Amino acid sequence: MATATIIDGKDFAARLRAAIAVQVADLKKAHHLTPGLAVVLVGDDLASQVYVRNKGIQAQEAGMNSFDHRLPTTVTAAELLEKINQLNQDPAVHGILVQLPLPKHIDADAVIDAIAVAKDVDGFHPYNAGLLAVGGAGMVPCTPVGCLMLLKHQLGKLAGLRAVVLGRSNIVGKPMAALLLREHCTVTIAHSRTHDLAEECRRADIVIAAVGKPQMVKGDWLKPGATVIDVGINRITAPDGKNRLVGDVDFDSAVQVAGAITPVPGGVGPMTIACLLLNTLTAACRQRGIPVPEVQPAAE
Amino acid sequence: MATATIIDGKDFAARLRAAIAVQVADLKKAHHLTPGLAVVLVGDDLASQVYVRNKGIQAQEAGMNSFDHRLPTTVTAAELLEKINQLNQDPAVHGILVQLPLPKHIDADAVIDAIAVAKDVDGFHPYNAGLLAVGGAGMVPCTPVGCLMLLKHQLGKLAGLRAVVLGRSNIVGKPMAALLLREHCTVTIAHSRTHDLAEECRRADIVIAAVGKPQMVKGDWLKPGATVIDVGINRITAPDGKNRLVGDVDFDSAVQVAGAITPVPGGVGPMTIACLLLNTLTAACRQRGIPVPEVQPAAE
Repeated sequence: MATATIIDGKDFAARLRAAIAVQVADLKKAHHLTPGLAVVLVGDDLASQVYVRNKGIQAQEAGMNSFDHRLPTTVTAAELLEKINQLNQDPAVHGILVQLPLPKHIDADAVIDAIAVAKDVDGFHPYNAGLLAVGGAGMVPCTPVGCLMLLKHQLGKLAGLRAVVLGRSNIVGKPMAALLLREHCTVTIAHSRTHDLAEECRRADIVIAAVGKPQMVKGDWLKPGATVIDVGINRITAPDGKNRLVGDVDFDSAVQVAGAITPVPGGVGPMTIACLLLNTLTAACRQRGIPVPEVQPAAE
Repeated sequence: MATATIIDGKDFAARLRAAIAVQVADLKKAHHLTPGLAVVLVGDDLASQVYVRNKGIQAQEAGMNSFDHRLPTTVTAAELLEKINQLNQDPAVHGILVQLPLPKHIDADAVIDAIAVAKDVDGFHPYNAGLLAVGGAGMVPCTPVGCLMLLKHQLGKLAGLRAVVLGRSNIVGKPMAALLLREHCTVTIAHSRTHDLAEECRRADIVIAAVGKPQMVKGDWLKPGATVIDVGINRITAPDGKNRLVGDVDFDSAVQVAGAITPVPGGVGPMTIACLLLNTLTAACRQRGIPVPEVQPAAE
């Protein structure tokens, strides 16, 4: 039985970061501009600390300035908004990311709303969500941008292909659907209330799984040859008693049917930070009125 | 052969306007607030003049204040933006609508962007498009709101139903898809690049046709019993040589297969202005910090 091409997101992301580093070096030389990424972390959630640390390291490796702002869990909403306001004003900061989730006493929507639209490198601000919907040039959330890059790398043009997006979060599902529509796919958004998820999947040339349910999408849900992008990152206890990361797709059965598939880990995950750096580069150029460079991953 | 229920949008819209008038009268009495709608028309396009006139008449019939602003085709972008800025500041104006299309020398996106988000009763501002996408309480474009009302009136709860939206305009298709998703439909957006529009339609419990192609959707494109909302308004020359308005759906064949269908004219069309008045009422209440009333059409 044929098995799918494994889409190596880790390698692709590394080559993308290398290409970004080249552009950053050019910007420094030609425009004396060093893109700066500010990450705000509230509280001491361990997973969030790891994410924030990795974002900082990778920004620096790409030649960018990285600014970490740690605030205690007890910070007030007013203090956090004041911090964001400072970063909005700071000309050395081109991208601002507030690590989610925030403590419950803080209204996350109000915080996201306070970030300057031009510096909103997570693309979560409603104005940027709206620009994505209506076709303007805003900031697009990092994970869907990464998924789209992998898809285009694998398939070339996507026009006319049938895409199913499983999941309708503001962070992945909805912006992913908007991006696929922009690429002229016929797009279906399916979710927990969909009557027959398997049937929706079986019609699709492209399946984006972003539901947070471990190994939900089985091989027999797939159209033979489909391209499968697995956004899920779920920690499960394997039969041997060990913890293991798995996606929303049952890889072992899916790999027998799909044409191409991203693994978990090593698929979509590494693309997210790479695309955050790409957004920061884009934001820096726009804020300085410099044409945004076309960044293509370095050669394989 | 069974024939479909004809969804009488003209009657529904009249009853909705009557219910809005009751709420407006209540607002005046209880809060000394008269919702005000300002319509800006640039140039002398005949169709636009008719639309604007109807909007003004229906706003007044509902007890609202109506402010018409006519500007010559030769108006500069700066003059138009200054007019919008005045309306943004005017406490008697709760809703601002700039009639499209605008003359070519004016950047329509910049004009829409200049309208205060809270007064953007057309729902075309990117911030409102973003709120619709992410699930916030913004202003939603009038035509999709009207379509959704007719659907809910016909079908009750929509959760789990398969909906196909034909067309992906910013004014109808995309916000319609977002609204249907909010109602927990499984939503497919199909368009000119879709390989087999008929096949997509045949799977759908709900078909929204908004492509601007006269009588494109045939009866044999439909699942028996489907609910069909026809947003198209196309002027064609009938075999008898007379001009006639038709929708994007071939009514005569569709009515034999559908469970319910909107006619053209008299279906979606009259709902659009009624929903504009509803948005103006909502905007006025929000701007004054008054709870937004639930408006249900007056009894049949």
